Amino acid sequence: MGKISPHPLSALSIEETSRARDIVLAESPKNVIQFRMIYRQEPKKAELVDFLALEHSGKLTSTSPRPPRLASVHYVQAHQSPDRRADEFETIVDLDKNFIISKKIVGTEYLAGLSTWEFDILVESCKTSPLIQERVAQFDLPPGFDIVIEPWPYGGMDQPGEVRRYFQGLVYAVDTRTNNPDSNFYAFPLPIIPVMDFEKREIVRIDELATGGAGDDLVPAAPRTGGVLNHCVSAEYVPELIPGGTRKDLKPLSVVQPEGPSFSIVDESLVEWQKWRFRVSFNPREGAVIHDVHYDGRSVLYRLSISEMTVPYADPRPPFHRKQAFDFGDGGIGHAVNSLTLGCDCLGVIKHFDGVLVNPEGDAEKAARVICLHEQDNGIGWKHTNWRTGRAVSTRRRELVVQFIITLANYEYIFNYKFDQAGAISVETRATGIVSVVNIDAGKTAPWGTVVNPGALAQNHQHIFCVRIDPAIDGHKNTVVQNESLPLPMDARTNPYGNLYEVKETRLTTSVGVDACPQNNRIFKIQNLDKKNPISGRPVGYKINPPPTQKVLADPGSTQAHRCQFAKHHLWLTKYRDGELYAAGEYPLSSKREEGGVADMIARNDDLLQEDVVLWSCFGLTHNPRVEDWPVMPVEIMELHISPVDFFTANPAIDVPSGKDTTSQLTTGSCCSKEKPRL
Amino acid sequence: MGKISPHPLSALSIEETSRARDIVLAESPKNVIQFRMIYRQEPKKAELVDFLALEHSGKLTSTSPRPPRLASVHYVQAHQSPDRRADEFETIVDLDKNFIISKKIVGTEYLAGLSTWEFDILVESCKTSPLIQERVAQFDLPPGFDIVIEPWPYGGMDQPGEVRRYFQGLVYAVDTRTNNPDSNFYAFPLPIIPVMDFEKREIVRIDELATGGAGDDLVPAAPRTGGVLNHCVSAEYVPELIPGGTRKDLKPLSVVQPEGPSFSIVDESLVEWQKWRFRVSFNPREGAVIHDVHYDGRSVLYRLSISEMTVPYADPRPPFHRKQAFDFGDGGIGHAVNSLTLGCDCLGVIKHFDGVLVNPEGDAEKAARVICLHEQDNGIGWKHTNWRTGRAVSTRRRELVVQFIITLANYEYIFNYKFDQAGAISVETRATGIVSVVNIDAGKTAPWGTVVNPGALAQNHQHIFCVRIDPAIDGHKNTVVQNESLPLPMDARTNPYGNLYEVKETRLTTSVGVDACPQNNRIFKIQNLDKKNPISGRPVGYKINPPPTQKVLADPGSTQAHRCQFAKHHLWLTKYRDGELYAAGEYPLSSKREEGGVADMIARNDDLLQEDVVLWSCFGLTHNPRVEDWPVMPVEIMELHISPVDFFTANPAIDVPSGKDTTSQLTTGSCCSKEKPRL
Repeated sequence: MGKISPHPLSALSIEETSRARDIVLAESPKNVIQFRMIYRQEPKKAELVDFLALEHSGKLTSTSPRPPRLASVHYVQAHQSPDRRADEFETIVDLDKNFIISKKIVGTEYLAGLSTWEFDILVESCKTSPLIQERVAQFDLPPGFDIVIEPWPYGGMDQPGEVRRYFQGLVYAVDTRTNNPDSNFYAFPLPIIPVMDFEKREIVRIDELATGGAGDDLVPAAPRTGGVLNHCVSAEYVPELIPGGTRKDLKPLSVVQPEGPSFSIVDESLVEWQKWRFRVSFNPREGAVIHDVHYDGRSVLYRLSISEMTVPYADPRPPFHRKQAFDFGDGGIGHAVNSLTLGCDCLGVIKHFDGVLVNPEGDAEKAARVICLHEQDNGIGWKHTNWRTGRAVSTRRRELVVQFIITLANYEYIFNYKFDQAGAISVETRATGIVSVVNIDAGKTAPWGTVVNPGALAQNHQHIFCVRIDPAIDGHKNTVVQNESLPLPMDARTNPYGNLYEVKETRLTTSVGVDACPQNNRIFKIQNLDKKNPISGRPVGYKINPPPTQKVLADPGSTQAHRCQFAKHHLWLTKYRDGELYAAGEYPLSSKREEGGVADMIARNDDLLQEDVVLWSCFGLTHNPRVEDWPVMPVEIMELHISPVDFFTANPAIDVPSGKDTTSQLTTGSCCSKEKPRL
Repeated sequence: MGKISPHPLSALSIEETSRARDIVLAESPKNVIQFRMIYRQEPKKAELVDFLALEHSGKLTSTSPRPPRLASVHYVQAHQSPDRRADEFETIVDLDKNFIISKKIVGTEYLAGLSTWEFDILVESCKTSPLIQERVAQFDLPPGFDIVIEPWPYGGMDQPGEVRRYFQGLVYAVDTRTNNPDSNFYAFPLPIIPVMDFEKREIVRIDELATGGAGDDLVPAAPRTGGVLNHCVSAEYVPELIPGGTRKDLKPLSVVQPEGPSFSIVDESLVEWQKWRFRVSFNPREGAVIHDVHYDGRSVLYRLSISEMTVPYADPRPPFHRKQAFDFGDGGIGHAVNSLTLGCDCLGVIKHFDGVLVNPEGDAEKAARVICLHEQDNGIGWKHTNWRTGRAVSTRRRELVVQFIITLANYEYIFNYKFDQAGAISVETRATGIVSVVNIDAGKTAPWGTVVNPGALAQNHQHIFCVRIDPAIDGHKNTVVQNESLPLPMDARTNPYGNLYEVKETRLTTSVGVDACPQNNRIFKIQNLDKKNPISGRPVGYKINPPPTQKVLADPGSTQAHRCQFAKHHLWLTKYRDGELYAAGEYPLSSKREEGGVADMIARNDDLLQEDVVLWSCFGLTHNPRVEDWPVMPVEIMELHISPVDFFTANPAIDVPSGKDTTSQLTTGSCCSKEKPRL
């Protein structure tokens, strides 16, 4: 009784993580080869909902029932018969009772998500592989250049029934004469891709890449040899290597909060800010997850997360059809997450949250500063001037931002959950980093990409994200309603002047995949039909505007398209099931087809009228690179908005103070007197 | 020779404005009734281009040819025969030579744009009108309530051939017992609209409004009388009247720039910032206009402006079909522009620009702080982490913002031209203010609006903006290319794995109206075909992503739709002509049909292959109000992006310093130690 349990939504501590590891090892002392991930197994919703209801009602006591504290432990274990592939275990440990409650072996038709230690082994194997050494020797590398291996998932398997733990390495060369380990090697791509069979720890093949352009054959006539980098030139991004250095005329701009932030944090997980109250947790598959979101005491969302993303590349030349990342599902974003830096990744007064990750031995390690929390000003929030009196009332729009950033080889993604004072939430994605390039012959261009640096072709690709929204609009029984504004013909009785349009609402009462339609101003309301807004008489709700971005372009019969069914609709509606968190299924690594993803979920045809509905919003960016995206691309920003619609009885931000910021200043003569002769 | 002329792109000074007035008055000493506007007549492009070329080449001397300095003077003059409608003059004055070079009388088929002094007369006439007094007396206003008249343009005339200078007044009641002149009268709408014939200075009619809802007749069976406000309740927004006051837990957040801003200003018009160089000017029709935009010495745009916007309302009951504002063209935004306030409308170190407006007598008056210029931080600009070394290089995204704000009766619009360090420009619109409401009977609802307060129905409407972009991509001869990403079927020879997609480009070589198509990732490149990017080999260009928002919904045969042809396409391409600045034509006030707008311009079928092309981007918001939009709505933000595509040879922001902001802080114990009992 005396022991204080952590909140069911807080992530596992280092102690809990270690204990989960020890419990697994105690049971299988010799066979465990490596650990992949250990993280909190989320409580069953039914149990958690009861707990949260008690918590919000203030009736929680030390004897209240609590969901069991569970750890999900993913590890690799040698098979009893040594010639069989190792088993991938996903074992659930009860940390209250210190015992294993379930063990699952990942089916042999799937591959467990990769771990970065496997990538380390790939890099090491390439370095020592005579096969690669011989092949590389056929290139005349410029003096001072060394090989760099960039590990990638293998992508979808080509052969029916093939399930192999393959990884591939993109190969670049780095100019060591810069004496700078951060010299940009991506400017020097080599036209080979070694393939490793990880089970055998062996480089099994080197794929030869075509380096031609428009009109050339899709497969190379012969392996390219010789001075393939002779026409490549450096393209640096670290400031000390930029020719001419960095610009000198950018004056500092700082965000200061002399009285501290407006948020408070309890238990390293509970965030309270401007009538919002939610929990934030970190896990190695999804990154930052938002839980149990309330505004002014009313429930809005049960859970909000980045579920998946895929990046299919559109270069038709083999093996580039296999360039298709699932940056969350391939192996989780755990070790890809950035440790955020004060004053760089966010400004002002910052709260950092640490995560817990494990090394291959299962040792729990603090992952420092994987999430940052800060406030930001985003211009005017609302304003009105009474022109009779001249009085303007103007408020600023303050936002609370939960940010995490991942680096996947060449590329980075920035994810921001943003809360505003008017009851709205946005999920913002920013794509940046270095576009993936391959070698192209001097003077050539190609329709499937853009030459962004001499000899470097940035291939066309798409980024398609999926945000999972588990709403709880004044309760867990909600209904999604499609709302459109449609033209109406002139009619003497109903529309005599032709200015009326129809606002048509359609309840979506069965699980389904639907699409954005901006020409109809199509939005989707998540309503609680059991509760009416006392002012408008309409059901209380939130709405989402699914960004009407391009869906997956790959041929529907292609492996790329099969693997990302989720990218075929802008919005999927499913009925909640415990553990269903991943839009492309649990095991997209080298999958041939999405299994257990949203397409399979909707096939259940679940009833969704006032049920526990989950929304999956899929949007993205067709990225045909510009030269301006090189060597590091400016952020491409996308946003998903989740806003109240007749949930409140007025603008919730109407009570935001309109006080003037007293530190703002007018420019002084010095900045504006820069004189030029007038003519 | 000794006299120094202002730059041809700078707005008229007070002295120049007064002189233009005096020159007009000298010629017509007795007949001028009122002045409407006096502003700089923009130089003919051919002349200005030559001047700017000299300026940019550094070869400008005091003897270089300059475009004449011209003033456009709009005024009302009594007709010789007193029973004829007054003449509306638009006279061009040469300020170098101090004489009138042209006089134009607005055709009697048009109405000259309104002036706010006409609205003052409308309000005054309503107050003294016995007709209105009698009608108002039929209502039982609550004790202490006074009438408030909200002047509006009349909207499109109903009768063929009718051209009358009518204005209408929306009528509300204000609770004087608050002793606060800013008490929100919009919460108390009265069901009448007086109509004034301005020529006669007479209230000619009172339109009776229906107050029913779904299923009720569109026209009132009888004028409503009695306690029509009895079910209305107050809804205040000024802080001292908000029940419970403003929230107390918002801590200050300030932007400080200890070394001042990074921009410099010359001549009160030339802005230089982070390799950008442009002029900003103010005029009473368009507000802030951006001219002669260069980045790093290269020409990007000749001119960028907000050309027009329309707000048609969708309540089918007469006379609401005439609720349709053209907030720029109805009368210019001159006296509707806000005087911006330091620390409220923008933070940090601010440069304010003043404008010049005239009163009815033509006296030039300084319009203080009509534009503000400031820098802002917008998160991460670009970032890459080398996972091998762990080194992250991260830059912040600094933006320069040119802002102006207008108040049109109940509503406000915030316009931001934003420049970033990566060579991109955005035009951001924010809609806020108070939604337009009409009286609705207690307990009723209506399909054409939302009850946002008891007795107050906010009618559905659209806001459709038009941004005029006059590009000069490395010169004035440019070509617009439609660029789409389209699926391709699997094909053994060209697309063996089905992952290839086609990027299809189509030159738009004749003036045309086209549409956004996000499902095809349709973008429009503005290219200079005469200049290739040395890296990619493609023509240098900028691209725009026209926001794929809903077009005008009104029946194509309706007056509403006839008046805003511009709202029927997302993008119009026209060939430049001097003076063609307005998407809905010069005279939309009470028009029955758009004349001289973009639809007429494209009908010329001008050739646009490497010609002086102008783009008109039309986007907006279908606004079916939420209860949360009341009493003042949170900003609805829309953005148009104009970004380089193969214009530069690399990311122009690659040289932005990645220095750490040293004032950012971690949260201290005090903000995070708020303890709750753990359970």
